[in-house]
Amino acid sequence: MTLTAEQLSEIEAQRSHHGQTLRAIAPGMERRLYTAHSVLDHGFVRVIDYMGDDAAICQAARVSYGKGTKAVSNDEGLIRYLMRHWHSTPFEMCEVKFHVKLPVFVARQWIRHRTANVNEYSARYSILDREFYIPAPDALAAQSTVNNQGRGELLEGEEAARVLEILKGDAMRAYDNYESMLSTEGQKGLARELARMNLPANIYTQWYWKVDLHNLFHFLRLRADVHAQYEIRVYAEKICEIVADWVPIAFKAFEDYRMGGVTLSASAMDCIRRMLKGETVTQETSGMSAGEWREFEGVIAARD
Amino acid sequence: MTLTAEQLSEIEAQRSHHGQTLRAIAPGMERRLYTAHSVLDHGFVRVIDYMGDDAAICQAARVSYGKGTKAVSNDEGLIRYLMRHWHSTPFEMCEVKFHVKLPVFVARQWIRHRTANVNEYSARYSILDREFYIPAPDALAAQSTVNNQGRGELLEGEEAARVLEILKGDAMRAYDNYESMLSTEGQKGLARELARMNLPANIYTQWYWKVDLHNLFHFLRLRADVHAQYEIRVYAEKICEIVADWVPIAFKAFEDYRMGGVTLSASAMDCIRRMLKGETVTQETSGMSAGEWREFEGVIAARD
Amino acid sequence: MTLTAEQLSEIEAQRSHHGQTLRAIAPGMERRLYTAHSVLDHGFVRVIDYMGDDAAICQAARVSYGKGTKAVSNDEGLIRYLMRHWHSTPFEMCEVKFHVKLPVFVARQWIRHRTANVNEYSARYSILDREFYIPAPDALAAQSTVNNQGRGELLEGEEAARVLEILKGDAMRAYDNYESMLSTEGQKGLARELARMNLPANIYTQWYWKVDLHNLFHFLRLRADVHAQYEIRVYAEKICEIVADWVPIAFKAFEDYRMGGVTLSASAMDCIRRMLKGETVTQETSGMSAGEWREFEGVIAARD
Amino acid sequence: MTLTAEQLSEIEAQRSHHGQTLRAIAPGMERRLYTAHSVLDHGFVRVIDYMGDDAAICQAARVSYGKGTKAVSNDEGLIRYLMRHWHSTPFEMCEVKFHVKLPVFVARQWIRHRTANVNEYSARYSILDREFYIPAPDALAAQSTVNNQGRGELLEGEEAARVLEILKGDAMRAYDNYESMLSTEGQKGLARELARMNLPANIYTQWYWKVDLHNLFHFLRLRADVHAQYEIRVYAEKICEIVADWVPIAFKAFEDYRMGGVTLSASAMDCIRRMLKGETVTQETSGMSAGEWREFEGVIAARD
Repeated sequence: MTLTAEQLSEIEAQRSHHGQTLRAIAPGMERRLYTAHSVLDHGFVRVIDYMGDDAAICQAARVSYGKGTKAVSNDEGLIRYLMRHWHSTPFEMCEVKFHVKLPVFVARQWIRHRTANVNEYSARYSILDREFYIPAPDALAAQSTVNNQGRGELLEGEEAARVLEILKGDAMRAYDNYESMLSTEGQKGLARELARMNLPANIYTQWYWKVDLHNLFHFLRLRADVHAQYEIRVYAEKICEIVADWVPIAFKAFEDYRMGGVTLSASAMDCIRRMLKGETVTQETSGMSAGEWREFEGVIAARD
Repeated sequence: MTLTAEQLSEIEAQRSHHGQTLRAIAPGMERRLYTAHSVLDHGFVRVIDYMGDDAAICQAARVSYGKGTKAVSNDEGLIRYLMRHWHSTPFEMCEVKFHVKLPVFVARQWIRHRTANVNEYSARYSILDREFYIPAPDALAAQSTVNNQGRGELLEGEEAARVLEILKGDAMRAYDNYESMLSTEGQKGLARELARMNLPANIYTQWYWKVDLHNLFHFLRLRADVHAQYEIRVYAEKICEIVADWVPIAFKAFEDYRMGGVTLSASAMDCIRRMLKGETVTQETSGMSAGEWREFEGVIAARD
Repeated sequence: MTLTAEQLSEIEAQRSHHGQTLRAIAPGMERRLYTAHSVLDHGFVRVIDYMGDDAAICQAARVSYGKGTKAVSNDEGLIRYLMRHWHSTPFEMCEVKFHVKLPVFVARQWIRHRTANVNEYSARYSILDREFYIPAPDALAAQSTVNNQGRGELLEGEEAARVLEILKGDAMRAYDNYESMLSTEGQKGLARELARMNLPANIYTQWYWKVDLHNLFHFLRLRADVHAQYEIRVYAEKICEIVADWVPIAFKAFEDYRMGGVTLSASAMDCIRRMLKGETVTQETSGMSAGEWREFEGVIAARD
Repeated sequence: MTLTAEQLSEIEAQRSHHGQTLRAIAPGMERRLYTAHSVLDHGFVRVIDYMGDDAAICQAARVSYGKGTKAVSNDEGLIRYLMRHWHSTPFEMCEVKFHVKLPVFVARQWIRHRTANVNEYSARYSILDREFYIPAPDALAAQSTVNNQGRGELLEGEEAARVLEILKGDAMRAYDNYESMLSTEGQKGLARELARMNLPANIYTQWYWKVDLHNLFHFLRLRADVHAQYEIRVYAEKICEIVADWVPIAFKAFEDYRMGGVTLSASAMDCIRRMLKGETVTQETSGMSAGEWREFEGVIAARD
């Protein structure tokens, strides 16, 4: 990660400046505030602000006047109930704001989650830094042969080396040319909003991203999933760690009901009921297509 | 306003419980937190939580690393620039959560602002209180004769008395019958989700309402406007006072550019330019319809 | 249902006016257009316009230039795949606009679905009709003794009669008083925006409601569910019939994966895997709370 | 524009296939349907579907039952009134779906408009085409010296030639390397989701974009504005032409009140009122900052 000394000292200064507030405080989140958590080679996630905690979810659910006198176990039961029954509005009552540095191709996936607020670094207004994502060896994978939008085995040896050389070389050349087009030495200098078009999708950008907890959970369910692209998944996983510190009870319920949860179709449930009664069900007798059956078998297979 | 002793002591308890935080703090908002500000006869608005301050707007606009060393005057210039040029995303970086008690017919207007989070008291789940909005004498007005959706002169004497009698009488009877249908004394007792249908639109409900500053400003521009219905306008005006304490610089810019601002059509601007050059423009030579011209004349008329 | 003769003849006129279009046409939906489908005692749902069909979902998923030449069976496979894997954006490419007449207390639940466009009849601007929802005998139920937000057995005999008398009597009296406060005979006449506050929540309102298919499915999953309040469920069920005619393949997938689908937590799936291997699992050994276990037993119980 | 013969014949096929519908038809839009309208060197905009017309806006505003018998002049008056008074929901009742081919850096600006539905071509799933935006000579401009996010004079001669050479050369090299990394000839072949990161931001992507008329107007106001970047402005201008054919009355009102409209602050309106009374107002006596005054002078300056 490449934070300048100046940035690090600004973060240090922010972290040393405590103040008094009457608001709900999440101690686990206070420990996270402002600190830049490394992701990929130059990226990071850091919490800029947050609103609410586990109790705030319950309070909204109860539209009550105070924190209530309910024991934590009651709050936990309520939160699990809300999660299990897809109640979304109480989780919307918590909000978090992140500062994220990420490659442009990751930003393009991320922004598809529309129910959030974003302020991105403007390459019309400012000049981007010379920072590009170059995959680590264990992330340099071949196209999957079974999944059209996934990756398979790792590249090795010469092929891996050639790919890394291309990615680095093209990035450096593109950036050299970006700078040279922008330069006003002995020339007018191309407009920034035009010059940026020469930069590849692995250049880093950054933004402030603010989202409520319900929509954040939706983001995490899709992006921390094993099918998500590795480069966005590592951001989602880092955010999972942060959320676990912020709203531990809600996060635990999310893990059980969403991340680890499974949605089964009416046909699939019917098969399970028949199997539990002792019937042997095959794809032919299941009423499912070959693809659905294959996925179904994966779901019910014992985990070791 | 009708807060129970228990509620008041819960508010008292919340206000006495300070804690340390690293987050941005808005001192003016800390003074508002939790306190119930009276609106109408039984309603209130109280701040439950907030995120961000004037500096947070600038920080997002700059996607910078720290609070910056900019003087307040610079922040003010930036915020006014953002407001003037309709930049919305930096204002979205602030968030506020209110607890509001309000008549149902006001809630029905309010909820049309969709970009917000809401948890409302459930009359399926719980029994509503016997609290109804009864207009004060200076709010009891006749239908406007010029504005299809507005009110005109005040009702007086016998007519006013008769209206108040009807509103009070019907509300009490409806509530008596609500209770009597719900009762399980010697009968099964009607389901709450059905019994509530007997209650008139001036009964009070309550909700938690969470919104970002940009969307709150939009709400305030429409609902604190002189054309808004009085009963929602008083809520908007109370919220204006609160926001002025929370983000004083942004609120000042909002007042100047939005609340006090005027949008003129291309035709209207053309007329103003001609008038400034000394031409006498009439409706006939303005290119505007009679209705547009009348509104235009109202806008350029000197304010005394 | 109470459509005036004039309204019926307007609907007739609209239904007789065919025109040529190049757009995608859903034959099943053309048969539904404009016709008012009765719901409850005075309510209705009618389709005012629609955009797209099953093929449009596939076309968007493929970002294709033409209609696609793929066989229907391929479209079905693709749509089922999209539904199974929670792809939402292709379903957002279909849009539908309804005209709905419904009791105000139903409208208040309905509007909580925020991702939709609404134009409601304005009681500030116009006078509401004397039309109230009065439950039919088989909808007049007692409060559930097991579910805080549900209804139980039917009311009978005298109790049922008394409730109906109250609902009718209070509605008529409230409306009489509404009219009398509005009247300008020998008095100024109360403003409409104030007089409406006297009307109970079972009065009918109406609106235009426009929504995309993804968000409509979400609405239907919650509101056509057995736990939804009967009075909104009948609207959702009527809309289900309409959608089944509009996008039959997508609706079928929705029924299988969403309406009939079940989401199981990580703990629940773990129990199922153990049970399929022959283990006897009890609540004690399940890792679930009593409430979760009870729901789990309901889900795996054989359907007869 | 580079549509293949196959794509052109698919479009031809769709345009030749008329059908009967009962829905509202906008004749001007029927003539636009499916046809690809060229934008930039390889881009296009084409209408895939639409819902509603000028009458539909009025119908929603009236929540009426039929088309009404109002003359067009009445519809025009109503639409202008709605636009002037910022009523948004009736315009939301019209919807349009576009297929757009556009450079990635334009797509990144476009997607910031969140209230829309998008299906983008997936570079995880498919291989992008070798098509890059290379500015025409009259779009190749230097950085503005007065506007941090704008462009100034045109580049000329050698500098222009050098820039074009860089943009073309880097694009071709990046694409050659993209293909070579993907290739499975004698190697495993890099995953598509990784290989795409080498491609610069001027590569073309494409998407289906669906939006309601209110939000489309908001997009057009910002992106067809003279301050918008040229490369997105040409798309917005093309869409303006299409919308003018679709809903001619609404578009005319939009042009007058939004595109040509001006919002003035309370201070600015105060100055105009003083000037109309004959007072000479200077920046010093205006109460405005230097920046605001400069913008104000620009607004009231006579247009020739």
